[in-house]
Amino acid sequence: MKYPGGLKKESCKSIDYSNRGMKLESEINLTNEYYLENDIAVIYKKPTPITVNKVDFKNRLDCVITEAHYKVPSTTDYNGIYRNKYIDFEAKEINKSTSFPLSNIHSHQISHLKKIFNHGGIGFIIIRFNKLNETYLIFIEDFLFYFEHNNKKSLPIEYIKEKGFIIKDKYKPRIDYLEILDNVCFERMN
Amino acid sequence: MKYPGGLKKESCKSIDYSNRGMKLESEINLTNEYYLENDIAVIYKKPTPITVNKVDFKNRLDCVITEAHYKVPSTTDYNGIYRNKYIDFEAKEINKSTSFPLSNIHSHQISHLKKIFNHGGIGFIIIRFNKLNETYLIFIEDFLFYFEHNNKKSLPIEYIKEKGFIIKDKYKPRIDYLEILDNVCFERMN
Repeated sequence: MKYPGGLKKESCKSIDYSNRGMKLESEINLTNEYYLENDIAVIYKKPTPITVNKVDFKNRLDCVITEAHYKVPSTTDYNGIYRNKYIDFEAKEINKSTSFPLSNIHSHQISHLKKIFNHGGIGFIIIRFNKLNETYLIFIEDFLFYFEHNNKKSLPIEYIKEKGFIIKDKYKPRIDYLEILDNVCFERMN
Repeated sequence: MKYPGGLKKESCKSIDYSNRGMKLESEINLTNEYYLENDIAVIYKKPTPITVNKVDFKNRLDCVITEAHYKVPSTTDYNGIYRNKYIDFEAKEINKSTSFPLSNIHSHQISHLKKIFNHGGIGFIIIRFNKLNETYLIFIEDFLFYFEHNNKKSLPIEYIKEKGFIIKDKYKPRIDYLEILDNVCFERMN
């Protein structure tokens, strides 16, 4: 089913209205605020894409959207700039503790991250295993390598532990993913 | 008045519901689609930020937002990657033919573009003068230079013509702003 703007409508079951998934998101938002306030990086969460159907114009100063639908996002949630480089990533929390099922991420988000990599940007996925209380960063090139060489529908945690990088909880910033980039991407470049 | 998410609510009069301003936007969207399809660049328009107040859950597959408000955007409308570089810009159409009044752009959008420049990205504003049928690209550093050295509230068209770059109408892509970047930014870098 095609909706205005060429994007499909998001089904309710795939939208996260509960508290599940919000903790990591709010921690990343706080981290990005910290990066911004300290002039370290300029990275934002993109607004959720919505198709607006009806707007009630009460007056010139107030208007209310009275009917709208969620759309399937065509890109990832976060992007920005750090140390001259374009940064782009998606963040996911899961309750499974043995692997990351591909069904947790839209296929066009993966192909978007692949394009970012091809154009010289840094693309990755932040995965939190809720029950293990562990958060990993895996670069898109390592993520894709697995699926291109294995006919599987999920990424085993062993592979994530081997190729990915654990993000340790800190006080400030909470989820210091740029530290990983400092150690990996920028070290590689030097 | 503070709204959830730390952003103020957008007043209706500053939101563009009419066709005004839509022509340039749709031309830029078509241009970005062309860049994407031809694997030239990955640049998207960000969704309009909205605060959702009420959602009607009809069933697992359908939900409707029944109350939401527009928020003032904290960043610009467009960003992405081109030739390894982070790209960030805002696009504005105006009916005035002699200058670009600062009131056409949110102050935090200007400070956002300044941060992008400071972090090594390419930031600019695309301005279309509707009556002249002319579209210009002006880099944020040139835009800011004027206001830092002149106690004015608008950018004269003479300055835009001198420091900015005209974007000529083409068939495909419509608004080929990356051509300017090729000639200016990437030439400077070589």
